[in-house]
Amino acid sequence: MLHGTAVERLKDYFTEHREQILDRYLTFLQLATISADPSTTPEMEAATQWLCRQLESIGLDVEVWETETAGHPILYGEWMGAGPEAPTLLLYNHYDVQPVDPLVLWRHLPFTPHVDGDGRVFARGAQDNKGQCLYVIEALRFLLERRELLNVNLKWIIEGEEEIGSPGLSALIEARADRLKNDYLLAVDGGLLARRVASISLGARGLVALELTVRGSKVDLHSGTHGGIAYNPNRALVEMLASLYDAEGRVAVPGFYDEVQPIDESLRSRLAIHFDEEHYFLQFGGRPIGGEREYSPYERAWLRPTLEINGLSGGYSGEGVKTVIPAEAHAKITCRLVANQEPSQIAEKVKRHLLEQALPGLEVEVTLYAGSGKAIWTDPNSPLVAAVSQAFIDLYGAPCLYMGMGGSIPIIERLAAATGGEPLVIGMGLDEDDIHAPNEHFDLERMCDGFILLCRMMSYLARTH
Amino acid sequence: MLHGTAVERLKDYFTEHREQILDRYLTFLQLATISADPSTTPEMEAATQWLCRQLESIGLDVEVWETETAGHPILYGEWMGAGPEAPTLLLYNHYDVQPVDPLVLWRHLPFTPHVDGDGRVFARGAQDNKGQCLYVIEALRFLLERRELLNVNLKWIIEGEEEIGSPGLSALIEARADRLKNDYLLAVDGGLLARRVASISLGARGLVALELTVRGSKVDLHSGTHGGIAYNPNRALVEMLASLYDAEGRVAVPGFYDEVQPIDESLRSRLAIHFDEEHYFLQFGGRPIGGEREYSPYERAWLRPTLEINGLSGGYSGEGVKTVIPAEAHAKITCRLVANQEPSQIAEKVKRHLLEQALPGLEVEVTLYAGSGKAIWTDPNSPLVAAVSQAFIDLYGAPCLYMGMGGSIPIIERLAAATGGEPLVIGMGLDEDDIHAPNEHFDLERMCDGFILLCRMMSYLARTH
Repeated sequence: MLHGTAVERLKDYFTEHREQILDRYLTFLQLATISADPSTTPEMEAATQWLCRQLESIGLDVEVWETETAGHPILYGEWMGAGPEAPTLLLYNHYDVQPVDPLVLWRHLPFTPHVDGDGRVFARGAQDNKGQCLYVIEALRFLLERRELLNVNLKWIIEGEEEIGSPGLSALIEARADRLKNDYLLAVDGGLLARRVASISLGARGLVALELTVRGSKVDLHSGTHGGIAYNPNRALVEMLASLYDAEGRVAVPGFYDEVQPIDESLRSRLAIHFDEEHYFLQFGGRPIGGEREYSPYERAWLRPTLEINGLSGGYSGEGVKTVIPAEAHAKITCRLVANQEPSQIAEKVKRHLLEQALPGLEVEVTLYAGSGKAIWTDPNSPLVAAVSQAFIDLYGAPCLYMGMGGSIPIIERLAAATGGEPLVIGMGLDEDDIHAPNEHFDLERMCDGFILLCRMMSYLARTH
Repeated sequence: MLHGTAVERLKDYFTEHREQILDRYLTFLQLATISADPSTTPEMEAATQWLCRQLESIGLDVEVWETETAGHPILYGEWMGAGPEAPTLLLYNHYDVQPVDPLVLWRHLPFTPHVDGDGRVFARGAQDNKGQCLYVIEALRFLLERRELLNVNLKWIIEGEEEIGSPGLSALIEARADRLKNDYLLAVDGGLLARRVASISLGARGLVALELTVRGSKVDLHSGTHGGIAYNPNRALVEMLASLYDAEGRVAVPGFYDEVQPIDESLRSRLAIHFDEEHYFLQFGGRPIGGEREYSPYERAWLRPTLEINGLSGGYSGEGVKTVIPAEAHAKITCRLVANQEPSQIAEKVKRHLLEQALPGLEVEVTLYAGSGKAIWTDPNSPLVAAVSQAFIDLYGAPCLYMGMGGSIPIIERLAAATGGEPLVIGMGLDEDDIHAPNEHFDLERMCDGFILLCRMMSYLARTH
């Protein structure tokens, strides 16, 4: 069978079944599965039941795993029909969505999906992640109905707490590690470099988050009476934070780069590292001048660790003037990590560097937030990457571009570490989809493309063994 | 007449009239003259009328000057009976008070004055400034009734907008400068170094207030995706703010100290410059390590200019973590100035220093707030200081200690500059009075002391000419 023919056949199937697929998609989107909102429990239950029926209808064995903290269950589906010798693929999606505030900016109600003349579907979750979850369902339905998935065993987690940090799944991973054991871990929650551009992220950076507090006097002081006497916690805070960088844009925390390996030249040559500075300026209004001067923007965002000040607060920030020396000042800091960097070690180094600057009479406290994770990175020569790349060639007729991901997906790193699989994040998302924002949308063209990509990828993966 | 005898006579008078004085005091305190609260207009009018009657009853010619912005009138009283050759003293007080929030922390209602067994009076305004205003009324009543004020002409401003920055009086100063012309300007709104310690402030620092804004991208960015690409406005802000100080605690703005004169040794030797570090630590919980290392704490707060960061804000400061690179970051800055420093010039120097650090693609904006003012400082050898000092010797039996004031009183500086008088701020306030806080209080002992101080001071001032 020629590849072109295979894609045509999948396209035809999708077109023939467009109404049923759209019907399932809209049903899924109508459920207000906001994991951060406790009042949505009935909708979460309805979504769980609906997903149960879908997964059972396509031939998976389904279990519902209850979670402890937020209480939104995990759907677990399995098809082990390829036998114990065949490789196992663990898929990952989520059915929960972000809150919808501010509602007033939505042109259609977020849980009353609107399909426009161009096949664009507007709803909360249209892309992230219900849209991407649905084309996985449709791909598995196609493959399992036709018994075309003979050489790959399937496991599938669809969780309901991704948007609140996956507490339930995190708590279950160790206990279910054997059950979830796999060779490949594929999270279908990612995006493309641009529309119809074959592209995948080979990795994501790790994350560690800290809060810095500087305390001076017991109470806020008058900045006239005490200005020149008290050491202002705001001043101590900005001096400490400024000391986190050197003049070359490097993170100046001693030992911060100790475990970082030089960028591999063969890897760099395969990455879509070209950065369009003017396009970036037009899109965001800022210049790409952050980070280490000796690296290019995507090298800095994908292959180098960074430290960002996410929040500053201290004293008065309302209208006008308040002549105050505040009792406390605060900063929130996150570090993005690359391969070999251990979050707890980096946190310790940042903490030590900050504590060493404490002045007499000023208390410095550094606390570590939960939810840290290591970086993930997949070898571009791995069978999973090869299968996805081949599928993209079929779909878009061009070799795959490789990217990195500046962001972090701690739950995928934890899943991969516990269950042995090589992790990869793929998807049909685009920047323009407005995920986490009003008027989130996706389109049926990419729904079809995702369906084709998944079918072809699975087919290639089966052949590599 | 021996001084001791004069004080005894005044004390006896106060004791004999204690009930009437207390009655007037409590009546004044019952009026909720919160200038920041537009709903208190009837109370402000009642206070104006009450003050009118008081000033007329003691023999002053009274005018009510309407104001434009907040609309709380200025009481103006005058007694020019000493004739055109005699010196003129302009007195300053205010009848408005601070808001009372948080009301729940008051042990008695703020406008239902409570007098305890020790003669302490609890109410909003008990000290600041109704209590201090009342002993001026009683002193003038005593002197004018007895025709003992023969050699000093009197002018008196009692304004109703001090706690909101004196917009009405500021707007009137230029037009009424001739009318307000004086030789001495005495604001009775200050305090003592400690209870029963003869002490006055020779000056107050000037003030200029700025806001610094750093703008990066058009919208908040994801700190994973953009971390290492975008230059975080929070980082630019802390780097710019840290650059405002050098390692010796000096303000590092070029030219900041250009107009500052070295501290005069003879002045320093007369100031109560001893600083009790342990007492400060016990009271406030911080160490006095701010400001320039080469000066002692009170030198830094009274005689040297400073720069303080009063507010920091940028990005996320709520619970937990938000991985954001904010579009903007902000800081509020005030400088306290000493003699010869021009607020607008200092603002320009700080602004230039900050703007020079702007990076490509980051917008830096520095705006100047209204309400700046120059420092005031009175020669310790002036007749006004001499008269107050002599009065304090009579009252407390010890020579006067001289202090500075780290804070600023722009309205007094403006009044003095426009009307020619030598300004001085005196008063019976103590740190423990909780002005601007719940359970503000004053006591009848200090009410009596203030009455005696004013009477004796006026008597000495009359003799110096």
